[in-house]
Amino acid sequence: MAKTDWKAEAKTLKKKLSKLKAKDAAPAKPAKMVSPLAPAGFPALPVIGGVEYAAVEAGVRYSNRKDVMLIRLAPGTAVAGVFTRSSTRAACVLDCQAKLAGKVDAAAGAAIVVNSGNSNAFTGAVGVEAVEAVTGAVAKALDLPASRVFSSSTGVIGEPLPYEKITAKIPDLVKDLREDGIEMAARAMMTTDTFAKGASAVVHGDGGEIRIAGIAKGSGMIAPDMATMLVYIFTDAKISAVNLQKMLSRQVDDTFNAITVDSDTSTSDALILAATGQSPAAEIALRSRVAKDFEAALKAVMLDLAHQVVRDGEGATKFVEVKVTGAASPEDAHRVAMAIANSPLVKTAIAGQDPNWGRVVMAVGKSGAQADRDKLTIRFGDVLVAEKGWRSPDYSEEKAAAYMQRDELVIAVDLGLGKAAKSVWTCDLTHRYIDINADYRS
Amino acid sequence: MAKTDWKAEAKTLKKKLSKLKAKDAAPAKPAKMVSPLAPAGFPALPVIGGVEYAAVEAGVRYSNRKDVMLIRLAPGTAVAGVFTRSSTRAACVLDCQAKLAGKVDAAAGAAIVVNSGNSNAFTGAVGVEAVEAVTGAVAKALDLPASRVFSSSTGVIGEPLPYEKITAKIPDLVKDLREDGIEMAARAMMTTDTFAKGASAVVHGDGGEIRIAGIAKGSGMIAPDMATMLVYIFTDAKISAVNLQKMLSRQVDDTFNAITVDSDTSTSDALILAATGQSPAAEIALRSRVAKDFEAALKAVMLDLAHQVVRDGEGATKFVEVKVTGAASPEDAHRVAMAIANSPLVKTAIAGQDPNWGRVVMAVGKSGAQADRDKLTIRFGDVLVAEKGWRSPDYSEEKAAAYMQRDELVIAVDLGLGKAAKSVWTCDLTHRYIDINADYRS
Repeated sequence: MAKTDWKAEAKTLKKKLSKLKAKDAAPAKPAKMVSPLAPAGFPALPVIGGVEYAAVEAGVRYSNRKDVMLIRLAPGTAVAGVFTRSSTRAACVLDCQAKLAGKVDAAAGAAIVVNSGNSNAFTGAVGVEAVEAVTGAVAKALDLPASRVFSSSTGVIGEPLPYEKITAKIPDLVKDLREDGIEMAARAMMTTDTFAKGASAVVHGDGGEIRIAGIAKGSGMIAPDMATMLVYIFTDAKISAVNLQKMLSRQVDDTFNAITVDSDTSTSDALILAATGQSPAAEIALRSRVAKDFEAALKAVMLDLAHQVVRDGEGATKFVEVKVTGAASPEDAHRVAMAIANSPLVKTAIAGQDPNWGRVVMAVGKSGAQADRDKLTIRFGDVLVAEKGWRSPDYSEEKAAAYMQRDELVIAVDLGLGKAAKSVWTCDLTHRYIDINADYRS
Repeated sequence: MAKTDWKAEAKTLKKKLSKLKAKDAAPAKPAKMVSPLAPAGFPALPVIGGVEYAAVEAGVRYSNRKDVMLIRLAPGTAVAGVFTRSSTRAACVLDCQAKLAGKVDAAAGAAIVVNSGNSNAFTGAVGVEAVEAVTGAVAKALDLPASRVFSSSTGVIGEPLPYEKITAKIPDLVKDLREDGIEMAARAMMTTDTFAKGASAVVHGDGGEIRIAGIAKGSGMIAPDMATMLVYIFTDAKISAVNLQKMLSRQVDDTFNAITVDSDTSTSDALILAATGQSPAAEIALRSRVAKDFEAALKAVMLDLAHQVVRDGEGATKFVEVKVTGAASPEDAHRVAMAIANSPLVKTAIAGQDPNWGRVVMAVGKSGAQADRDKLTIRFGDVLVAEKGWRSPDYSEEKAAAYMQRDELVIAVDLGLGKAAKSVWTCDLTHRYIDINADYRS
């Protein structure tokens, strides 16, 4: 037997010990790492004629990163929007809503200005002043009516927005506007997002291509506040503002209103859709083949961005579709799907990779929707779990447990009552969610 | 310099390493400890004439502990009940509801039989059989009509209840019935509750004392399932079943329906209130002074038990009252209070001892209740945080942060719109909640 080299052994052990100690000392602090559910990278997005982007470091709250972005929309751009229904929504949201509801002169062009680091929410009269100052300064610099400048703010709540830091940078922003700057704009509005989110589509119009490109932020935290979601989608389609708004409103329920990270609704959620009309294709006529294709493509872009928001959900390790079929009405289907997707017990079971279908039954029961225990069918992916009011005789716990190890899961519930169906998308509830949100703000 | 004894050094390091490794390997397993919010001990509860308790080890799921309890109620006992509104409620709940809705012969007496370890929920036709077998066996042993035997089950979902284990023990239970066994009964229905819950009151009736004593279980987990809550309250009052039910139904909204641990509703929640009529006091007449006192005392017992359930909330370290005033309607007040109490972002902030009032504003906004941002007033205890749509000029972050260190907190929101007010009680959302619920069941 060879003699043990105790010195070498001690060295190795010392190294191991110091590694383990380091790991032990820093368990809870959330590292700034990319979500395990993130796509490989930011996608290549098409240039949309008539849309230019710029971003600067204004130091609103963060240092050493761009935190204000400006988007110029060419004259003739139609603008549509949907916003949070929160009764405590931020001043910039109220301002956008008022401007979109008013008489609009599309010929003038438009602009969007967004800052991260401060949400300008619950800031009373000074919040309104800040919105007027920022949008007024952009309007002046770009020679637009103030009624055509839309703004968003995302970040800490209840702190006055240091708007002079933003207005001081507007000349720089205007100078830097360029057609290929969409990724930079997406990055400037990130808070604790772990990746920038983009999606696109191309539709064959009459006489040419119609392009759609969109960016989103959500749902990270840093200050922390609630998970705010901001979405901007651009297209070169020729389409009236009225028709654009109709399509957007029709598709929002099955896309952005069908995702949930933690059931908490932001004061700042905003989605603006702008159509510049610069595609060579003819104007999109209502009920045409192109209108149908365009709306489908728009929905695909919206859904893609919505899914990316869930994939960046705080602490998320699983991307989950909750698919409800056989409901008495679409409202019931949505209600059941949301009850499952928002249940802390379902979400912690998913985090624990536990096929805990009893909690799914519980969530169906509490949803308030019409449901008959004895007609329920529950599947985890392809694994039939329960049917006719009880665990399926063919149920294999091993198969279900193996399925739950995946990153992407489908929980399917058939209520056995009608034909309505809805899906929602969510993520799991993990220790990192607590780490991120139980941290003191300072 | 002395020569290093590398062998001894390696040994010491090895020991340290193995200790640290062991610590690292078992961080998440929740220890079975008593909640830091638990009362000092089980209270001394008065004997209620006409109520006897027994408990046995039946081995339904747990070993080495009593897991089935029986309560006999003397002839003449009026029974009232409230139950979960879940559409997937358990067979025993449906059975209790049917029995209480039917024609009742109070002269016959009644009984309650409860097991822990298995909830007999979502168990289809065999679940119904199990309820019939257990209640039938108790009825036979106590010479009662089966329609006067009420049962509850709490524990794992979707597993057939091994009811023969229960029926085999009924002779032992009947033999052991005694008037001073209420704490034992409370312990037998615990699942992962960390303490047994009891409360009592005495009312001065016409001609003698009227006593009330109650026990509850919730909201621990072990198997795990959803947090089930079972409550049994006894009184020796002479009162009709109709009046008893009226009082119970009137008080349930402001007591048990005003608490939330995690927003998930059980399939098995049940509250049974039994009045034996054995007090020397005269029958309680409607709208009398005694009726008023009795209902107030009943409410106090219900609220005390409800608070104990929150104090035993999974992973709880803070007991929180959310107090909403100035609402346009009681429904709105309740809606706002529940939106705050159920918000994962509010609950994680409380866990982090962070006076994050922005999240309270967010929760008000998402509640769906009528609210005006500029009329909101928010207080953490005595600390005025926000008023008139913004942080109060007198707000002191230090004072608020110091307040949040306490175990018991009051978050008060005045909506400034009307006169309606409601309180709800909740706890914080901590890592232990994740530990308890993300654990695989096996």
